[in-house]
Amino acid sequence: MPVTAPLSGIVPPVCTPLDSAGEVDTASLARLVEHLLGGGVHGLFALGSTSEVAYLTDGQRGTALKTVVETVAGRVPVLAGVIDTTTHRVLDHAREAERLGADGLVATAPFYTRTHPREIAGHFRRVRDRVDLPLFAYDLPVSVHSKLSPTLVRELAADGTLAGLKDSSGDEGSLRRLLVELGGREGRATGRAPGFSVLTGSELTVDAALLAGADGVVPGLGNVDPAGYVRLWEAARSGDWLLAAKEQERLTSLFALVDAGPEADMGRSSSALGAFKAALRLLGVIECGDTAFPQIQLDATATAEVGARLRDAGLTTVR
Amino acid sequence: MPVTAPLSGIVPPVCTPLDSAGEVDTASLARLVEHLLGGGVHGLFALGSTSEVAYLTDGQRGTALKTVVETVAGRVPVLAGVIDTTTHRVLDHAREAERLGADGLVATAPFYTRTHPREIAGHFRRVRDRVDLPLFAYDLPVSVHSKLSPTLVRELAADGTLAGLKDSSGDEGSLRRLLVELGGREGRATGRAPGFSVLTGSELTVDAALLAGADGVVPGLGNVDPAGYVRLWEAARSGDWLLAAKEQERLTSLFALVDAGPEADMGRSSSALGAFKAALRLLGVIECGDTAFPQIQLDATATAEVGARLRDAGLTTVR
Amino acid sequence: MPVTAPLSGIVPPVCTPLDSAGEVDTASLARLVEHLLGGGVHGLFALGSTSEVAYLTDGQRGTALKTVVETVAGRVPVLAGVIDTTTHRVLDHAREAERLGADGLVATAPFYTRTHPREIAGHFRRVRDRVDLPLFAYDLPVSVHSKLSPTLVRELAADGTLAGLKDSSGDEGSLRRLLVELGGREGRATGRAPGFSVLTGSELTVDAALLAGADGVVPGLGNVDPAGYVRLWEAARSGDWLLAAKEQERLTSLFALVDAGPEADMGRSSSALGAFKAALRLLGVIECGDTAFPQIQLDATATAEVGARLRDAGLTTVR
Amino acid sequence: MPVTAPLSGIVPPVCTPLDSAGEVDTASLARLVEHLLGGGVHGLFALGSTSEVAYLTDGQRGTALKTVVETVAGRVPVLAGVIDTTTHRVLDHAREAERLGADGLVATAPFYTRTHPREIAGHFRRVRDRVDLPLFAYDLPVSVHSKLSPTLVRELAADGTLAGLKDSSGDEGSLRRLLVELGGREGRATGRAPGFSVLTGSELTVDAALLAGADGVVPGLGNVDPAGYVRLWEAARSGDWLLAAKEQERLTSLFALVDAGPEADMGRSSSALGAFKAALRLLGVIECGDTAFPQIQLDATATAEVGARLRDAGLTTVR
Repeated sequence: MPVTAPLSGIVPPVCTPLDSAGEVDTASLARLVEHLLGGGVHGLFALGSTSEVAYLTDGQRGTALKTVVETVAGRVPVLAGVIDTTTHRVLDHAREAERLGADGLVATAPFYTRTHPREIAGHFRRVRDRVDLPLFAYDLPVSVHSKLSPTLVRELAADGTLAGLKDSSGDEGSLRRLLVELGGREGRATGRAPGFSVLTGSELTVDAALLAGADGVVPGLGNVDPAGYVRLWEAARSGDWLLAAKEQERLTSLFALVDAGPEADMGRSSSALGAFKAALRLLGVIECGDTAFPQIQLDATATAEVGARLRDAGLTTVR
Repeated sequence: MPVTAPLSGIVPPVCTPLDSAGEVDTASLARLVEHLLGGGVHGLFALGSTSEVAYLTDGQRGTALKTVVETVAGRVPVLAGVIDTTTHRVLDHAREAERLGADGLVATAPFYTRTHPREIAGHFRRVRDRVDLPLFAYDLPVSVHSKLSPTLVRELAADGTLAGLKDSSGDEGSLRRLLVELGGREGRATGRAPGFSVLTGSELTVDAALLAGADGVVPGLGNVDPAGYVRLWEAARSGDWLLAAKEQERLTSLFALVDAGPEADMGRSSSALGAFKAALRLLGVIECGDTAFPQIQLDATATAEVGARLRDAGLTTVR
Repeated sequence: MPVTAPLSGIVPPVCTPLDSAGEVDTASLARLVEHLLGGGVHGLFALGSTSEVAYLTDGQRGTALKTVVETVAGRVPVLAGVIDTTTHRVLDHAREAERLGADGLVATAPFYTRTHPREIAGHFRRVRDRVDLPLFAYDLPVSVHSKLSPTLVRELAADGTLAGLKDSSGDEGSLRRLLVELGGREGRATGRAPGFSVLTGSELTVDAALLAGADGVVPGLGNVDPAGYVRLWEAARSGDWLLAAKEQERLTSLFALVDAGPEADMGRSSSALGAFKAALRLLGVIECGDTAFPQIQLDATATAEVGARLRDAGLTTVR
Repeated sequence: MPVTAPLSGIVPPVCTPLDSAGEVDTASLARLVEHLLGGGVHGLFALGSTSEVAYLTDGQRGTALKTVVETVAGRVPVLAGVIDTTTHRVLDHAREAERLGADGLVATAPFYTRTHPREIAGHFRRVRDRVDLPLFAYDLPVSVHSKLSPTLVRELAADGTLAGLKDSSGDEGSLRRLLVELGGREGRATGRAPGFSVLTGSELTVDAALLAGADGVVPGLGNVDPAGYVRLWEAARSGDWLLAAKEQERLTSLFALVDAGPEADMGRSSSALGAFKAALRLLGVIECGDTAFPQIQLDATATAEVGARLRDAGLTTVR
């Protein structure tokens, strides 16, 4: 389904279920897509960081994206991450994503390299120029190690390079300045930046982002509880901000599952991705909770804690 | 006025006006205090980072704090920053602040040194133990170069060491987790962490912080427009979140004055502090807009831009 | 030529000349290889950061490595960088490098992802296990954003996973500790860590690294002046440390060409890579000095400065 | 003893022994000064980071400096650290240091604040202008969180603001560039930067720094083994670089005592400072090994490991 401008609503980054051999489990992935659509989400983002894109070979990336696109079958737009170090490598992924039927692309600034802001601008312009799909900038300093400046984002919004921003910088003050500079809540609705979509990836401040005028959310935790994020979205749309805050509080408590893995033995990233997948397995959505090599797996204690968190949040586990 | 627990409302960090010789201008400072109280603020924070505390000698710190305490004369609580590298140096400031009549203390973790979390806990406990005033932890990684973990804050809240947290980390997701762990909007009101005050120093996300259940705000920009922040506070208290967001948008636009100084010639910190003071001078509150040596001063172009921002925000300049 | 253990001497990371269309200029690359071998170097490192590996598509990487291997024709060992985000993506490059005839592999820790030390250990072990070529760890925190700990390096040296370390961390104190822990100058010569090679990528402290007992050097500037680095190496081997230091001083002065590009207009990385290529062009080795997109190109002024630096260092320009 | 330009040789940063109540133990400090002078050092640096200056009150700083100056009694120059956040606070310390008889001052760039390079230049110029003692810049990014650029250092050397640099940045490549830009080994001896002293604080690469033309060293480990560093210095002066490297290797092995404290329970800084003091106590130089509050103390196991390291390095423990 083509991206309508601005893209809005709940657009989860789709986890990539793996089997015990480490290959993409397409049956589980298809079930996960149905789980998300069943929760009422407004779009899907395949091959993002939560999808473990950086761990997948080119072949695995293709399998995962193909499975998502075919399962969605046009019911919502599908964005595809085109994550690689620099422009020409990104373009190889972008052409493949277009071929596989993605509705939009999500690209970071170059990484591994140290890249000047003028070069970053050239990077996004070249990607947009060579592959004719709406392009979203992915601001993720924890992985990319540079932050997209609001000035650069506005420049690339104004000239039509970018269809939107996925802001996972965690810098909510900077996001607020950007939203106000784009026209604020009212200005944006009445057309000062009509087609540009601002999506937050900060899953613990969604009520705040929506109050500030963000168009939507890309919550990793939305894999586990898509219906919760959709309720939060609907509360905000109806102006019931206390209800939105209450739902956000429930989701924030649930989010604590990311710390289930023992801190001494594994990183916070492996723990979080492992917890999302363990939760999906306990909910009966996917078959195997393994994360991609070389990530360390959650142990039984951590998995039990994930289960307890799910039940505390009112979700029904089947394992 | 003693701090009531939890401290709540708008508690601006008070700028320290200087004369052209670089000494504390007590008459201007007294006028600034009246400007803030006239705007309806609920407390004052002297000798914080916005007060240029790190630039003031011990003598100047004393003069500034004495002026604030005497001018306030018990109308609102006065917190005093006790900013120094480690515990015993902080204690020297704390004893002086107590002598001068401060109602509460605000201390950071040690800086310049590299300090283990267990040592940071010992630091706060020792300060609280030796000087009998409510103690607020000041989380300011941009200056201190470490972040207070939510776990540590909750431990020090639970054992009564801390009366509150001033969170200037900019990490709103972490702040949300802390608020939820402390009981959330409802739990906090009904007593699960009744005396502990969470104040945000992030002046661009105040509506969001209040929606999330923060008790108050310490906005540097509140020097310039205290009444605006008080209106935001009142809108939030009355549950009119769209009005709160609208006021936040106006203040966010006004905040752009911090970038008035030319980026090639001066740092963002000098530009921001200089802009606050230039604004106070243009508003007729203080006599001289100079920041402390060795900071570079705003030039005439930058000052004119500050004036334009003030007028755009509906404030009346007199110079 | 197989890698003899420990690999030692001058092993430059080979620049990848591009034509004006941005494709690998194999004729220029072959001339560059002859320029390096003619200078007396002891090995070559293709597809490293100085080779702009992060900018090359998989196809371009293959072309570059094939050209280097075929031109070298067994005269010295050829190491191949296998630079990608995580293990399975690295393995795809490793298998291709083996197929193309590389004599050894150079891999970083995972990047883009946040990876725990235990996971990093697993990463190197898996790569070594699956492709039977000597494996060198590449410590490059400026790109990878984590540092390999000396403890981890020694563990992976002891169990035979690693044939060596290319240390581009710039942390010479840590490198010295590692060298001493491996047995120091004497212990290493007499067999306490006989097969493990420590190579420094810090081109300005080569005399120091050799005095400390490093086995060799991977100097980016060695593209421009391989004979200079070989003279430095020979002086060190003969124990003439003042001569080594004098040669290092000449090379340090030459190194200033990396700052030829104007700082306001381009990053230091583009400036350095552009300067190496501009120098190779001025020396008549390669045809075109362009760096890969989206890097900004040196302008005429900067190129003239590169030429001046070359002549100051006693090198003969032909353009 | 006045500082002769350029200051050269071994100039240890003097630990500050404390008694069990946390006060300066002047008798132990006097013995430590004699231990250092007995080892043949060429100057002393009081109130540096290794002196725990950031933990000492103003009164304790005065006591420590007075004790060092009086004990030295003109036998070598005494530098005094004037460590505080910004210029006017530094000047208060500088005037006191002058009054107490220091022969030179050592100041960092401002910290806690974010300070523009032009402001940093103004800072050093003001300090030099107001107190008439040779001024050394202290480059310590791990504490100050900014690095002094070689350009700034050369500018302040050229105009006479700075008498020297104490480089504890750990960036040996940058240090080499600075030394070469100042004239290199030969140029400096013959007068191109005759009075400016470059001292390294990197105690594990002293042989390398001296080979590169540094004037001297400020080694924290020099508290424990001053004679070892003096031997290293003499070997370098006589051109016996292999002997210098061998001595450096012994000192590098000894340096491992900094990791005696258990990593899970205390920071690396407390462990290092605690190990220096534990070593001095085991060597019979000082009475009590405590570090300043809130640092965690070494336990018995860690202290035993320090003792083993001392004996391995050929030093004689008396406890």
